[in-house]
Amino acid sequence: PKIVTLPGDGIGPEVTAAAVQVLREVAPDLQFEEHAIGGGAYEAHGDPFPQRTRDALADADAVLLGTVGGAQNSPWNSLPRPLRPESGLLALRKALGCYANLRPVRVQPGLEHLSPLKPELARGVDILIVRELLGGVYFDGDRKLDGDTAYNTMRYTTPEVERVAKMAFWAAEQRKGRVTSVDKANVLEVSELWRRDVQALRDREYRSIHLNHEYVDSVAMLIVSDPSRYDVIVTENLFGDILSDLAAVIPGSLGLMPSASLGDGAGLFEPIHGSAPDIAGKGVANPAAAIMSAAMLLRHGLKRSDAANSIERAVALALREEPTRDLGGKADTKTFTNAVLEAMG
Amino acid sequence: PKIVTLPGDGIGPEVTAAAVQVLREVAPDLQFEEHAIGGGAYEAHGDPFPQRTRDALADADAVLLGTVGGAQNSPWNSLPRPLRPESGLLALRKALGCYANLRPVRVQPGLEHLSPLKPELARGVDILIVRELLGGVYFDGDRKLDGDTAYNTMRYTTPEVERVAKMAFWAAEQRKGRVTSVDKANVLEVSELWRRDVQALRDREYRSIHLNHEYVDSVAMLIVSDPSRYDVIVTENLFGDILSDLAAVIPGSLGLMPSASLGDGAGLFEPIHGSAPDIAGKGVANPAAAIMSAAMLLRHGLKRSDAANSIERAVALALREEPTRDLGGKADTKTFTNAVLEAMG
Ligand SMILES: CC(C)[C@H](C(=O)O)[C@@H](O)C(=O)O
Ligand SMILES: CC(C)[C@H](C(=O)O)[C@@H](O)C(=O)O
Repeated sequence: PKIVTLPGDGIGPEVTAAAVQVLREVAPDLQFEEHAIGGGAYEAHGDPFPQRTRDALADADAVLLGTVGGAQNSPWNSLPRPLRPESGLLALRKALGCYANLRPVRVQPGLEHLSPLKPELARGVDILIVRELLGGVYFDGDRKLDGDTAYNTMRYTTPEVERVAKMAFWAAEQRKGRVTSVDKANVLEVSELWRRDVQALRDREYRSIHLNHEYVDSVAMLIVSDPSRYDVIVTENLFGDILSDLAAVIPGSLGLMPSASLGDGAGLFEPIHGSAPDIAGKGVANPAAAIMSAAMLLRHGLKRSDAANSIERAVALALREEPTRDLGGKADTKTFTNAVLEAMG
Repeated sequence: PKIVTLPGDGIGPEVTAAAVQVLREVAPDLQFEEHAIGGGAYEAHGDPFPQRTRDALADADAVLLGTVGGAQNSPWNSLPRPLRPESGLLALRKALGCYANLRPVRVQPGLEHLSPLKPELARGVDILIVRELLGGVYFDGDRKLDGDTAYNTMRYTTPEVERVAKMAFWAAEQRKGRVTSVDKANVLEVSELWRRDVQALRDREYRSIHLNHEYVDSVAMLIVSDPSRYDVIVTENLFGDILSDLAAVIPGSLGLMPSASLGDGAGLFEPIHGSAPDIAGKGVANPAAAIMSAAMLLRHGLKRSDAANSIERAVALALREEPTRDLGGKADTKTFTNAVLEAMG
């Protein structure tokens, strides 16, 4: 199988290299092909998503992404919107047709103390957030900034809602069978459609799933005050952007959070943390999220669950034995990666 | 001065009565006039915001609102959208021209243990969230649900951005002088306008304010993992809905959170908690948020800061001496209200 790696900006190259090292160990048959994306791609090719990168995706079996973007005050942020690093990321999602972003939020046993929440609230949290990734206000073409007025359009169609809801129901079948669909149906017509279609699909095809609907403002509260009530959360693009980042703080370190974006073609696997330009190139970044994203690549992209499990077990062990600096430990990128490799035996 | 009270649904009447009792004590010259809103108004008059209520606002100096809406499974939620309780609330905001919703989030000294956050994170939190309340995706007329597609429009104009930003800068001048403006300018044109206009206003008229801009997903994280970094947060309607509810969990009880909605005319003052139909009519609701909303009414609506301060001090005392059930104490609505009245001397 062919894996396209897109190391990207900041610490992206370091954590991606670590993930590739682990992948080579458990799946020696993988072929890797590296390409440019983000700010670096703009510097080198004048485009944050160059044609050569786009072409390479055609026969890829999965894509492993590092991180994209510069510091808050990076000159990249003042480029015209289509040239900014984020535009490369959005174009990549679109090119791959990845309409469902899966973000597991799990508090590892023994690491509850890292959470900003009280340990009794953090303990045992195990949520899967399924975010719609190709629709809504992100991609709708009806958008404009013109003088002293501007607008964007939050639009969804039934097929867009159904395909991501299917993904959520499918995932829930392998978990506790409970799905919470999040919207703002008390105010938005687009949410009314969302709620109607998610419910209809459940009633038609997923009768064993327990589905409920909650408002986004209420979920923002409850995810913090009572996170254990959730199993699978499914929501539209913008709400998902906010809620998945919010939920990601519960385990206490973004350095622990992987993600998978799935669609009809090759999946996209990436850590959710940013490019951390302040520590880039120093060899101290925590590669756990990238390595766990590689595990998701094996599980969802290549259907190799055994290899995925073995990586995840090894990461859990390494986190206890060689915690990185962001976790209050001492390990640098290399030490941690070696601990993972060793734990895999 | 004439105060219009709108007790509303659920526990609204109980907590509003408590707040009125306290107001009568500190401001015997106030005239109260009670009117219908929400689900109850729909039942009685076929309209969640009846004409008679609308008329009463014309010469009001301030409006004290209880709570609006029914249980999750209330038949009110299946009414056509314009007849639902929430529509009454939105129509009320619009009628009053309240474009800025102010929500103070303060962790009371000694009550840190109520927070879902670790006490060391909760301690000393003192944020003011200023939410734009009349624009964006909430009120824009370009909206439709039609067969298998639906959309809403997130629109802002420069005057709408400037008037709420002014309110935030004004509030910050009386606090630590720091404003964080929240948007999604890396994706949305409407956020680009927002960011540009907030910054331009600061540069033109509020040079002493320290202004920074953050993305909504990042703020959702940081409000939980590092709440003390914020002084005043200003944001558009939908982001404000989510972030203000999120921030409201930090003090540990929604029963403690007041709000003020200000504009060019009479202000609207209301607790942020819901109508809690499960405990309605039992006399056990915590009226602290309604009473603190009455304090905000005195401060912002009638410019009577001394009376406002005396209520707030009394509430803080009563919370320690006669905590209500939601706070792990025993006091019911009456006991708590009496404790406030006593503490005011
Ligand atoms: C960088 C940005 C465009 C992106 C998004 O909003 O989708 C990011 O926040 C994310 O969640 O991956
Ligand atoms: C009830 C609903 C329409 C309302 C809103 O979204 O504004 C509520 O959530 C609030 O924040 O006051």
